[in-house]
Amino acid sequence: MAIAQVSITPLGTKTPSVSRYVANCHKVLEGMEEIRWQLTPMATILEGELDQILTAIRKMHEVPFDEGALRVSTHIKIDDRRDKEHTMNGKVDSVMTKLEEK
Amino acid sequence: MAIAQVSITPLGTKTPSVSRYVANCHKVLEGMEEIRWQLTPMATILEGELDQILTAIRKMHEVPFDEGALRVSTHIKIDDRRDKEHTMNGKVDSVMTKLEEK
Amino acid sequence: MAIAQVSITPLGTKTPSVSRYVANCHKVLEGMEEIRWQLTPMATILEGELDQILTAIRKMHEVPFDEGALRVSTHIKIDDRRDKEHTMNGKVDSVMTKLEEK
Amino acid sequence: MAIAQVSITPLGTKTPSVSRYVANCHKVLEGMEEIRWQLTPMATILEGELDQILTAIRKMHEVPFDEGALRVSTHIKIDDRRDKEHTMNGKVDSVMTKLEEK
Repeated sequence: MAIAQVSITPLGTKTPSVSRYVANCHKVLEGMEEIRWQLTPMATILEGELDQILTAIRKMHEVPFDEGALRVSTHIKIDDRRDKEHTMNGKVDSVMTKLEEK
Repeated sequence: MAIAQVSITPLGTKTPSVSRYVANCHKVLEGMEEIRWQLTPMATILEGELDQILTAIRKMHEVPFDEGALRVSTHIKIDDRRDKEHTMNGKVDSVMTKLEEK
Repeated sequence: MAIAQVSITPLGTKTPSVSRYVANCHKVLEGMEEIRWQLTPMATILEGELDQILTAIRKMHEVPFDEGALRVSTHIKIDDRRDKEHTMNGKVDSVMTKLEEK
Repeated sequence: MAIAQVSITPLGTKTPSVSRYVANCHKVLEGMEEIRWQLTPMATILEGELDQILTAIRKMHEVPFDEGALRVSTHIKIDDRRDKEHTMNGKVDSVMTKLEEK
């Protein structure tokens, strides 16, 4: 199980608003039951098998082109940990627990 | 008002767990009332005046060194929009509204 | 043709030096004739078909695990432009030409 | 001495070409003698004191707004190593030496 973060940004669109593109990218995820995801103000976070995550991101990257974008800038960060169970919730809980201890 | 995302990672620590460092970085934010922040599984998102955000990040970046790290890798993404009010909640709401319309 | 940048960082290695891992990741690229690549002080830049680039990155990401790393943090930026020929050299030349005009 | 990588991207410009903005961002660096920099196909890499680097990036981030951009997306990666001398050339040499040994 890996966790990844992705943001997909079309360049050269007429307005600086890109939420329409982001929303359409998310429709790709609706068809992928085995991936859990979470929308943040800066990116989408995905949890699942790494190869399935990368397949999802590859499809998401194509969405702005399908809607007319000529250039797309996609940032991906993969956090792949194999010595223990690794989940989105577990990562946040681990930090929050340490914050409360102090 | 800008929104920024930061992740601060010490390299060469003995174990792959870094949540202790992340928690200590967050203590910097507790003293900065004018910045709103949100912890995600992959990063910390900050909202406020850009210069105040960068001051906070500069302090956060120093924390792992204070705890003995020899190398720190810090990733920052700034999303600075000046044609309209720009908030963490507004960005997520804008995408969610468009997802529900479909 | 797309251009992508990748950096692959093992966490929790005993020392802060990671060049050994980076060098081994590069051996993956030696077997892929259709991808051009360039090493910079901060990342590796790849030029080629996007799917081939992603295949290469997927293999590179696995290398530190093969050498004993327990956690790997991989950052990828894809710059995919489809309205014109798009190359590593062309991008730098375009900026340099504009710098010289000034 | 730290090394940082920055890419500054205006969103909502009418065309997908952004090299004009990148070139203007670089003019900021011409006035800062104490920072060494290198242009790559994907970013600009800076070497120098961390606070001077961040001052330069803060100025560079403002350039697209001065030229009419309404939204700017800036990505920064800081690689700050304090156990040994750390330079752009040293990092590349370290990887290349290990590649040649194999």
